[in-house]
Amino acid sequence: MLNAAEVETAMRRALALAARGPAIGPNPRVGCVILSAGGAVIGEGWHRGAGTVHAEVAALNSLPNPDAARGATAVVTLEPCNHTGRTGPCSDALIAAGITRVVYAVADPGDDSRGGASRLAGAGVVVEAGVLENEAEAFLHTWLTSVRLERPFVTLKWASTLDGRTAAADGTSRWITGTASRQRVHEQRAASDAIIVGTGTVLADDPALTARGDAGELLGHQPIPVVVGERPAPAGARLRAHPRGLIETSSRDLAAVLSGLFELGIRHAFVEGGPTLASAFVAAGLVDEYLIYLAPSLLGGDRLAIGDIGVGTIGEARRLRITSVEQLGDDLLITAAPPGPVTPLSHPTGPLERNA
Amino acid sequence: MLNAAEVETAMRRALALAARGPAIGPNPRVGCVILSAGGAVIGEGWHRGAGTVHAEVAALNSLPNPDAARGATAVVTLEPCNHTGRTGPCSDALIAAGITRVVYAVADPGDDSRGGASRLAGAGVVVEAGVLENEAEAFLHTWLTSVRLERPFVTLKWASTLDGRTAAADGTSRWITGTASRQRVHEQRAASDAIIVGTGTVLADDPALTARGDAGELLGHQPIPVVVGERPAPAGARLRAHPRGLIETSSRDLAAVLSGLFELGIRHAFVEGGPTLASAFVAAGLVDEYLIYLAPSLLGGDRLAIGDIGVGTIGEARRLRITSVEQLGDDLLITAAPPGPVTPLSHPTGPLERNA
Ligand SMILES: NC(=O)c1ccc[n+]([C@@H]2O[C@H](COP(=O)([O-])OP(=O)(O)OC[C@H]3O[C@@H](n4cnc5c(N)ncnc54)[C@H](OP(=O)(O)O)[C@@H]3O)[C@@H](O)[C@H]2O)c1
Ligand SMILES: NC(=O)c1ccc[n+]([C@@H]2O[C@H](COP(=O)([O-])OP(=O)(O)OC[C@H]3O[C@@H](n4cnc5c(N)ncnc54)[C@H](OP(=O)(O)O)[C@@H]3O)[C@@H](O)[C@H]2O)c1
Repeated sequence: MLNAAEVETAMRRALALAARGPAIGPNPRVGCVILSAGGAVIGEGWHRGAGTVHAEVAALNSLPNPDAARGATAVVTLEPCNHTGRTGPCSDALIAAGITRVVYAVADPGDDSRGGASRLAGAGVVVEAGVLENEAEAFLHTWLTSVRLERPFVTLKWASTLDGRTAAADGTSRWITGTASRQRVHEQRAASDAIIVGTGTVLADDPALTARGDAGELLGHQPIPVVVGERPAPAGARLRAHPRGLIETSSRDLAAVLSGLFELGIRHAFVEGGPTLASAFVAAGLVDEYLIYLAPSLLGGDRLAIGDIGVGTIGEARRLRITSVEQLGDDLLITAAPPGPVTPLSHPTGPLERNA
Repeated sequence: MLNAAEVETAMRRALALAARGPAIGPNPRVGCVILSAGGAVIGEGWHRGAGTVHAEVAALNSLPNPDAARGATAVVTLEPCNHTGRTGPCSDALIAAGITRVVYAVADPGDDSRGGASRLAGAGVVVEAGVLENEAEAFLHTWLTSVRLERPFVTLKWASTLDGRTAAADGTSRWITGTASRQRVHEQRAASDAIIVGTGTVLADDPALTARGDAGELLGHQPIPVVVGERPAPAGARLRAHPRGLIETSSRDLAAVLSGLFELGIRHAFVEGGPTLASAFVAAGLVDEYLIYLAPSLLGGDRLAIGDIGVGTIGEARRLRITSVEQLGDDLLITAAPPGPVTPLSHPTGPLERNA
C-alpha cells in the first residue's frame, strides 16, 4: 500500500500536468499519474482539450506496456468520468486496464459525467476522494462553478475613475485607463470562451471585441462575442466581421442567455458592459468575479460604471471580498468576488466509504 | 572645513530631531545640529511648537558653554528665520552666538519669516542651501505647501463603495467601511489643525467631529471643526459642544474660507465632505491630497461620493497620482495627489552663491 505522502506527491504532479491543458473550452483541465504497486510513476497524462483523449486514457496510453496497469493506482485531479462522449467513460477504461485503486481530488459535478467513482467502486476498485481537494478546487474554480451552476462562470469587468465614472459628461472616454490595463483586458478576453456586451455598447461604440496583442495582432484564442438585448446589431457592425462569428440573443433574460451559452459549451463568459448590462448582471446575482480597473482620475457627472442594482437600503449592499489589488501602469486593478469560501460539493457517500 | 558627508550626516540627524516636534500647529517642524570646527556634534535642538524657542535657539541653548558656538557650523533643516515673533529672529541669534557657517535644507517660504539666509550672509556668515533638500521637502511637504499657497494644505477624505457610492437609495450608510478604516480616520483628524464639513452634513448627520480612540476616548489633539456654507448650524448641534469650539463661516467661498483659516494659523485642513462640498473643493482645484476609502461592496443608485466637478469632456478629467494603496481590514485606502512632483522653491540667489 502506498503511503499518503506518496499519493499527495503524485497528486501535485497530476495538478501540474493538468495545468498544461487549455484553460478554455467546455472540458476541465485534468491530469493523471499512474503509480506502480511499489510507488513508481509509470504513466502520466493530461487532457489537451475537447475532442482529445481524457487524462486517464492519456496516462494509460503512456504506460510502457498495457500490462503495467494491473494492480496499479491512478491518481487523478478530477473524479474519472462516467460519460460516453466522443471517447468511452474513463472509469471503464481504468477498470478494463486492471487499475485496482483510484485516488482523485475533486468530485465531478457534471450531470452527464458524474458517477465514475461509484462505477469504479462497484467494480471492486478501491476509491479515495479528496486528496489535495482545496488545491484542485482552486485550480478548477472557474470550470467547477460553471458546471455546478449549469451556466458560464461570469467575470464582470469595468473600467472607471476613482469616483466611479466611465466617461465624461459629453460621453468621451478615450483613454480612461492606460496601455497596461488595456493590454491586460485583451489577455483576459483571450482566457474566456465568450465576451458579452449589451446592445447599447454595440450601438454606441461599434466595438471589434477581438483579443489583440500590443501590436494589434489577433491573439491565438478568440472568445465568441455575444450581444445581449432586444435590438439587433446594425448590419454594418464590426462585430459581424469577428473571426469567431457573433451570437445575437435578442433577449434581456440573462439567466436564459447564460443557460443557452452553457449548452454551447461556454464555461467562462467575460462581461464587458456597458453600465446597464453590468448593473443587470450584478442585480441578478450572476457575477462570480469582478475585475475593476480604476484610473487615477476624477470625472464627476452622471456616466457611471454601475447604475441601479436594486439596493434600497444599506443592509442590502452587495458585499464582496477583494481578492487582489494590482498596479498596472498608473491604474489599479481590483479583483473581487462574492463573499464566502469556495464550497466543494460534499463527497459521494456509500460504496466509497466502505472501500476507501 | 567639514566635508560634505559630515554635513549630510548632521542634516539627517537634524531631520530626525525635527520629527520629534508636533506635526500640527502653525509652525514647521525644524531640527538643528551644531558642529564644532572639527566636526563634532556639540549642540542639538528642535522646535516643540508655537510659543516655544526655535530649533536653532534650542540647539544654541544646549551647548556646553556659550563660547562653543564661536566658529561653529549650524546645520538646520529649514532656512533660519528672519522674523521677530515671540522670540527674536534665529538668524540674529546665530550671528550673535558667533556661528560662522550655516547649512540648511529648504528655504523658508514664509512672507514674514524668509530672508534669514541673506541676513546671515550679509553678516559674513557662510551660508549653504539645499543639503538633503528632497528629504526635507518631503518631510515638510504639508507645511511648505500651506505657507507657499497661503492657505491650509487640504486633505480631502471620502469613503465609498467600489462603485463610488456613499449611501444606499434611502440615505442609510452605517457602516460602509469597517472599524480599521474608521479608526484611521480618527487618527487622520487628530493629525490635522481643522476638520471642514459642509452645512449639508451638519444638518443631515449632526456629527460630533471629535478625534476619538478605539474606546471612544478623545485623542490628545482635537482639530477645530469648521462648517462651510451659508446656513447656520442648528442651535442644538453636537458640534456646538466640540472641545475646541466651532468656526462657522457663513460662506461658500472656499478660497476666502481657506485664507481666513490660514490667518488663524491653520496649516492642514481635513475636508470630510459631504459630496457637495467635496466636489466644490475638487472643482476649485483646492485639494492637495486625496484619501479615498473603498469598501468591498456595491450599492448603485444616486448617492455619490463626488458629484459635478465641472468636467465636460475627457481631456478635462482631473488626473491624479496614486501614491499608496493600503488594506485596512476588508477596505482599501487609496492615497492620491495632484500630478507633478513636489516643486521646491528655487534657491535664493545673490550673496549665497558667493559665500557657499
Ligand atoms: N468603461 C467600461 O468598462 C465600458 C464598457 C462597455 C461600455 N461602456 C460604455 O457604455 C455605454 C453604453 O451604455 P449602455 O448602458 O447603454 O450599454 P449596454 O449596457 O451595453 O446596453 C444596454 C442595453 O442592453 C440591453 N439589455 C440586455 N439585457 C438587459 C437587461 N437584463 N436589463 C436591461 N437591459 C438589458 C438593453 O437594450 P435592448 O433594448 O436592446 O434590450 C439595454 O438598453 C457606451 O458609451 C460605452 O462606451 C463602458
Ligand atoms: N461617505 C462620506 O465620506 C461622507 C462624508 C460626509 C458626509 N456624507 C454624507 O453626505 C450627506 C450630505 O450631503 P451634502 O452634499 O448635502 O453635504 P455637504 O457637502 O456637507 O453640504 C452641502 C452644502 O454645503 C454648502 N456649501 C458650502 N460651500 C459650498 C460650495 N462651494 N459649493 C456648494 N455648496 C457649498 C451648501 O449649503 P448652504 O446653502 O448652507 O451654503 C451646500 O448645500 C449626508 O447624508 C452625509 O451622511 C458622507
